[in-house]
Amino acid sequence: MIIVKIGGGKNLNLEGIINDLSNLKEKFIIIHGANALRDELAEKLNKPKKVITSASGYNSVFTDEESLDIMMMAYAGLKNKRIVEMCQQVGINAVGLSGIDGKTVQGKRNVGIRVKEQGKLKILRDFSGKPKSINTELLKLLMENGYVPVLSVPIIDENGFAINSENDDIVAVLKEAMNADKVIQLIEAPGFLDDPKDPNSLVKEILKEDLERRENQVDGRMKRKILAIRKLFENGKGTVFIGDGRTENPITDILNGKGTVIK
Amino acid sequence: MIIVKIGGGKNLNLEGIINDLSNLKEKFIIIHGANALRDELAEKLNKPKKVITSASGYNSVFTDEESLDIMMMAYAGLKNKRIVEMCQQVGINAVGLSGIDGKTVQGKRNVGIRVKEQGKLKILRDFSGKPKSINTELLKLLMENGYVPVLSVPIIDENGFAINSENDDIVAVLKEAMNADKVIQLIEAPGFLDDPKDPNSLVKEILKEDLERRENQVDGRMKRKILAIRKLFENGKGTVFIGDGRTENPITDILNGKGTVIK
Repeated sequence: MIIVKIGGGKNLNLEGIINDLSNLKEKFIIIHGANALRDELAEKLNKPKKVITSASGYNSVFTDEESLDIMMMAYAGLKNKRIVEMCQQVGINAVGLSGIDGKTVQGKRNVGIRVKEQGKLKILRDFSGKPKSINTELLKLLMENGYVPVLSVPIIDENGFAINSENDDIVAVLKEAMNADKVIQLIEAPGFLDDPKDPNSLVKEILKEDLERRENQVDGRMKRKILAIRKLFENGKGTVFIGDGRTENPITDILNGKGTVIK
Repeated sequence: MIIVKIGGGKNLNLEGIINDLSNLKEKFIIIHGANALRDELAEKLNKPKKVITSASGYNSVFTDEESLDIMMMAYAGLKNKRIVEMCQQVGINAVGLSGIDGKTVQGKRNVGIRVKEQGKLKILRDFSGKPKSINTELLKLLMENGYVPVLSVPIIDENGFAINSENDDIVAVLKEAMNADKVIQLIEAPGFLDDPKDPNSLVKEILKEDLERRENQVDGRMKRKILAIRKLFENGKGTVFIGDGRTENPITDILNGKGTVIK
């Protein structure tokens, strides 16, 4: 089973990706982002995304109730349904699900983010959290009956509230729960770059033993991404492919080793 | 089996409705609108709803691609996910589905609306259409496994495109396909009013033979609604309840005959 993670950048070739997926022999689940769309919508609605920096130096989106509304519109609404529509047009019988539908992705709400404000530590609590478990019964029920789940945030917390969560973390929990042997990550770059500014510095292969070193090599979102990829290997084997979602046949290219392969 | 149609007005007591539904013994499917939310969002995005009047005198929303985007955000995104969240909080294991997910609601795209412009007849074609069939297998699969489907537009046309459709028409097709014996329609009024301007003119009971006369009594959306209710009886028996979705326990009230009962 393959987990196909489609990034939220606006330059991904969504039609190419979906068309390519329709030729895939193995079963798969799609999970997608919608960062660019969310940011654009938030700006139009005059509710720009709030980003806070934790005391330990990680940047996080701060999700208040209005941000969650916008997230539901951008991720579970527009992006999810347009992807489902594209799937249907090439014969993939997709069913879009957010993590709250049938409690597909259950998580635990964060107790709060420790931030420094004017030298003082303070706790800010938002509607975000970490995925903990998957309703594998529902996903299997759908897949055994010919449907392809198309997942997006929000996920559901321990009290039934919708919360935001990092897709990379969801992929890690999903991979273990569904026993997926492959994860394909489609991004707006040729794969993992030795120098993030140089598209010609593609790293063709990373051994999982090397991930910690690579994590120290990068910053920001990429640091978090590598950390998440390390988690993918904590509880299981398999192969992670990171590759360019902007080409004509992204899935074929990536499975043929044109991106970065981590194993 | 009961079909529960939640109107798209902003004054409905959604929490009361959902809470009340959690005590229901019979199986049910929810289908919801989001008119007020859609209009509000469209206005904020500076894309006000386009309404055109057909040559035969019916008003219709004209759904271009941008309107469809907004519809996906308001209906399948924000409204659907907030309803699913409320359901989960009272123990209803809801799964939100638009009509394109798993081709739950399949329709036929309208060939166009005949309008009169400066005295001349003209055809305008948008992304809208009529529901024709239901993927009952998917709905039954979910319901037999303890899930409650929460449906919204868009639906899917014969070429795999997302299209807008009237919820009343979807309810009619759904009722027949799922062999539902009850339809509950929750609106922002005590029920069917003899005089739309007088909330004290509630009609407690309408016999289906009387519907045609009632249809001629009203205008606009209500006319379309009565027409849709007539269709509910074309292919089957059952009871339609129209009642106030603003009370504390709307479902209990309506099933106890506090609204309009049509049979």
